[in-house]
Amino acid sequence: MATLCKPAVSVPEYVITMEDTLEFAKKVHKGKPQLPLALRLIQKTGVTKRHIVQPIEKTLLHPGFEERNRVYELESKKRCPEVIETALANAGVTAQDIDAIIYVSCTGFMMPSLTAWLINTMGFRYDTRQIPIAQLGCAAGGAAINRAFDFCEAHPDSNVLIVSCELCSLCYQPVDDNVGSLLSDGLFGDAVAAAVVRSNGGTGVRLERNASYLIPNTEDWISYAVRSTGFHFQLDRRVPGTMEPLAPILRQLAADHGWNVANLDFYIIHAGGPRILDDLCKYLNVDRSMFRHSWSTLSEYGNIASAVVLEALRRLFEEDEMLPGGTGIVAGFGPGITAEMAVGTWAVDVPRSRQATPIAASATPLV
Amino acid sequence: MATLCKPAVSVPEYVITMEDTLEFAKKVHKGKPQLPLALRLIQKTGVTKRHIVQPIEKTLLHPGFEERNRVYELESKKRCPEVIETALANAGVTAQDIDAIIYVSCTGFMMPSLTAWLINTMGFRYDTRQIPIAQLGCAAGGAAINRAFDFCEAHPDSNVLIVSCELCSLCYQPVDDNVGSLLSDGLFGDAVAAAVVRSNGGTGVRLERNASYLIPNTEDWISYAVRSTGFHFQLDRRVPGTMEPLAPILRQLAADHGWNVANLDFYIIHAGGPRILDDLCKYLNVDRSMFRHSWSTLSEYGNIASAVVLEALRRLFEEDEMLPGGTGIVAGFGPGITAEMAVGTWAVDVPRSRQATPIAASATPLV
Repeated sequence: MATLCKPAVSVPEYVITMEDTLEFAKKVHKGKPQLPLALRLIQKTGVTKRHIVQPIEKTLLHPGFEERNRVYELESKKRCPEVIETALANAGVTAQDIDAIIYVSCTGFMMPSLTAWLINTMGFRYDTRQIPIAQLGCAAGGAAINRAFDFCEAHPDSNVLIVSCELCSLCYQPVDDNVGSLLSDGLFGDAVAAAVVRSNGGTGVRLERNASYLIPNTEDWISYAVRSTGFHFQLDRRVPGTMEPLAPILRQLAADHGWNVANLDFYIIHAGGPRILDDLCKYLNVDRSMFRHSWSTLSEYGNIASAVVLEALRRLFEEDEMLPGGTGIVAGFGPGITAEMAVGTWAVDVPRSRQATPIAASATPLV
Repeated sequence: MATLCKPAVSVPEYVITMEDTLEFAKKVHKGKPQLPLALRLIQKTGVTKRHIVQPIEKTLLHPGFEERNRVYELESKKRCPEVIETALANAGVTAQDIDAIIYVSCTGFMMPSLTAWLINTMGFRYDTRQIPIAQLGCAAGGAAINRAFDFCEAHPDSNVLIVSCELCSLCYQPVDDNVGSLLSDGLFGDAVAAAVVRSNGGTGVRLERNASYLIPNTEDWISYAVRSTGFHFQLDRRVPGTMEPLAPILRQLAADHGWNVANLDFYIIHAGGPRILDDLCKYLNVDRSMFRHSWSTLSEYGNIASAVVLEALRRLFEEDEMLPGGTGIVAGFGPGITAEMAVGTWAVDVPRSRQATPIAASATPLV
């Protein structure tokens, strides 16, 4: 078993409110037929403000793919270290204790990925495994958690650092004016998140079982068109309706673990958009308030892609008083359409001096 | 423990010999100061022929990043399924038996990665985990093997499919004429490879221990410049000299496993280039013939990036008579500069009817 400790998250200093977004949309689409639709879509995102790495005026310009990617590298190097330091401290470990770094990001592309630079500059061991994932989009947060669990199972006594660096504003494409693009222009925000998964000890979600699911024949519903101008986000109209087929999958995962998905103590759900959260609540028969950390993440930061699940979990740590043994589920959704899911139990770290005694108790499973 | 079964590999139908490469270099660099250097570098690659997905005349043109990526998608969809079918058959499993697909490729970018399409079209289960890795370059073959091992350790009774799709010719950049580019123009070839890692049973390399190592402060020695024209491969002059620092790392990995790296029964080494293979032989104090499968891969296919280790292993299966218990090492090298390494023992599948008896024997470790 491995424990997902308290995440650290930072959002950039440039803030745009929904009002700002509406104003800019009125300018950008002025006199064009898509304007009313754009305004309606923005108003329905449920996003009251977002944080972005550059001023909005600069964000709306496209300086070319090369320059965009240069900004991505610059900003990720500027913003990741502090978040990582906090995540390490949250978990009570140091860089030297980390055995693998899972770096997930779909909003910039580097080879080598940022992992090499992080190891060289932040004091990680040179034998740290590097697991960069760029192609799972918003599902990569859940995937990172699940692959961290796998790594800890395979390598006892190890610790895995997850880093999610999503600078979505650097994928804004001024020329795109289809429905999916208009929606995403009002939905996505930037954030950097990190968390440590510890094989032993740690307070947080003790990961117990994971699963993945691909909704059949939906591979072109969320995708990138790769062009000389960079990644163009393509979103099908049918995506908001995907919780109907996914809810039974989450229910089955909980059932496989002997749990009823409607009666868990916490839900860490990707805030893809308001319909995703509304529908999943409905289909799982869960009270809306149980998704409050996803709702507040969406409202205050927008859809921050693979970082959503880490930010929602950070809010749970900050705002709730979880009790040991509390049951929960984590679910990320993204291109494929893929769901990456885990179930786990709230665990509270027991200091080493107490772990040793009594011997009999240590043989008793906590759950 | 998990067993890496016999890989399947296919190379495309368009063949260019070293003579062809020299001829084309004379045309491309005609009258330019870099011509003598280009010819010298090509002659030193040790590559007698390569296979590419398009005729050479078409390969030398750059139709734009979008078109290049479209060709990547088309060609990968055309070429991967057959190789995967053979890899599944080699391992004695079906698509339904696969629990995770690790797809490694640094020569085209898709989101979602090809994993979603493979699941939708080849009969894999919809709960198959998708692990796409695009940013480890040539080291990704070793990384895929190591992450497959991790997955099998975490999920007993599982099977992992590794797919390496490297269409390096689609990254040819006509405008690049620095030393690294001139060298790579004569070095890289295209190939698609696949192999299954089985938790239980299977004939091949029983994976027992893995490790990764980043050579300090070399992150810009092998890298992509990401531009509107796509990925521009950048290779530092110092890369061919990296076996001196890496040899002790491989020696230590073997020693940690109780083995002497100079006395193993097989070596599956990334054929980055002739100096890589020559130097590693020398520093490990291994006879040159022990790297024969890497040498023949380099000579006949060029450096096929993450597919090299799978092709070298395929040749070992075809050409050698390995005995159960034979000891070996697998090592991939790539950007970072990262080495992804594993040690393992040759295992021969025991049919189920024989596995059951005698009971006493089944409790005895084979090694």
